[in-house]
Amino acid sequence: MMDKITVSYQGEPGAYSEGAAIEYFNQEIETLPCHFFDEVFTNVETGTSKNGFIPIENSLAGSIHRNYDLLLKKQLHIVGEFYYRIKHCLLCIPGSTLKNIKKVYSHPQALAQCEESLKSLNLELIPEADTAGSARLISENRMFDAAAIASKHAAAVYGLDILAEDLEDNPENYTRFLVISNNSLGLRKSYPPEGFKTSIVFNLQNKPGSLFKALSVFALRDIDLMKIESRPIQGKPWEYMFYIDFMGHVKNQVCMRALEHLQELAPYLRVLGSYPRHQYPFASGKDE
Amino acid sequence: MMDKITVSYQGEPGAYSEGAAIEYFNQEIETLPCHFFDEVFTNVETGTSKNGFIPIENSLAGSIHRNYDLLLKKQLHIVGEFYYRIKHCLLCIPGSTLKNIKKVYSHPQALAQCEESLKSLNLELIPEADTAGSARLISENRMFDAAAIASKHAAAVYGLDILAEDLEDNPENYTRFLVISNNSLGLRKSYPPEGFKTSIVFNLQNKPGSLFKALSVFALRDIDLMKIESRPIQGKPWEYMFYIDFMGHVKNQVCMRALEHLQELAPYLRVLGSYPRHQYPFASGKDE
Repeated sequence: MMDKITVSYQGEPGAYSEGAAIEYFNQEIETLPCHFFDEVFTNVETGTSKNGFIPIENSLAGSIHRNYDLLLKKQLHIVGEFYYRIKHCLLCIPGSTLKNIKKVYSHPQALAQCEESLKSLNLELIPEADTAGSARLISENRMFDAAAIASKHAAAVYGLDILAEDLEDNPENYTRFLVISNNSLGLRKSYPPEGFKTSIVFNLQNKPGSLFKALSVFALRDIDLMKIESRPIQGKPWEYMFYIDFMGHVKNQVCMRALEHLQELAPYLRVLGSYPRHQYPFASGKDE
Repeated sequence: MMDKITVSYQGEPGAYSEGAAIEYFNQEIETLPCHFFDEVFTNVETGTSKNGFIPIENSLAGSIHRNYDLLLKKQLHIVGEFYYRIKHCLLCIPGSTLKNIKKVYSHPQALAQCEESLKSLNLELIPEADTAGSARLISENRMFDAAAIASKHAAAVYGLDILAEDLEDNPENYTRFLVISNNSLGLRKSYPPEGFKTSIVFNLQNKPGSLFKALSVFALRDIDLMKIESRPIQGKPWEYMFYIDFMGHVKNQVCMRALEHLQELAPYLRVLGSYPRHQYPFASGKDE
């Protein structure tokens, strides 16, 4: 019998990240909750857990910047990605009903994402640090007049009833997760470019046109960019690190050439990982 | 005697945004706290307040994306910008001392920004929805064993003592604020390009090289880009709106030509405002 893989995530038990990790690994894993994203990275660095499972972007809310910063700071590898549908539920103490509920606790982003659905219920919205923590709060304090917006998974973890499902105003609510590891992926027989994504981080000299030139190394080679993100560089206010995801694997010659070309322009350049693409799984959206 | 200008901001009384607004307007203003950023925009739309004062980017934490989304959604104008130094203080109930303090409440970002300073104190870190709210929490509940990380301004508002100042690990902690209004700025005699910044938002067809072409309209005219930001488009997962700040005013002919050129490529393009640049005021950083 194989040992269970240990996977660290940020949040309390019942967090969306935990639910997504269980679905991604599609097997019995041991999940390790962490207070902060830093802890997730440290647990992987030290071997306390084999993998970290971190949200990097939400289709409605955008990028999770702390994790971009940590990808830069720590020397770990991206070995996978996963698109996960976020479904917000309204949870309450068993026995409570919608009539009792006067206030609703959740993360400000979850409250904002359910704005329209909540309007008709005329509840007081109370921002909390996270969704699963809100579920724990009303459960531990037996708050019969309160509800929490959190995942179905959180309802199970904290013994709460589900008053309403699919509360999000916009169903196109997906989070892209990254799987991080101390080691990059092992070698394969072939690397079809359309089956892989590569994530890199680099900086540029702060002069007009430098980003334009950097993007040219991909555009001139017809390499498809899937994401570009900029982050301030610590200690150099208003200078930026750029994060790019492009289609292809560093083992593809055209990608390797593009990176060599970029190196001529970028004082700093690092490959964060080449990993199998998770096809964006839903008919209404494009593949990415 | 002039009526006071009313300025809406997000947060509780004592928030960094309130302190920054008071400094920016450099006069007696009436500040109006709002629970959510949406309310700030709505207050300006309806005339409840003349201006809104919103954080758009922090030198350490990056962009405040909710406000980028609201700039797109609402038809308001950017009429000013302000760089404000964020100084975190450790606040406690008068009479309490560092020896009593077992835990510290604050926004997760503030806790992360004071990580090193807090390590030696060996306190339990408890994430809360915001900094000023944490100050209010320990004040209202007379929590002698707790401290909050918040602004000096919050100490005054909630009658707290300042146990320690400049707690932030990195002193290069600035937030850029935008001033929003129902009306764009009145006409001037001249528009020296280096004295102004223009903010625009646009989207692009989702095909390889489209961002490269869009940036070329600025690069080919030697227009200096100061910021580029991308945000997911609601309802079109993994398609993006781009936000660019460039040096110059829409009344400058070269800027006008660049925008006409961009219009050939961008299905959607809107100017959010041309406004006087606030020179980045500190020796260690570049102007921007």
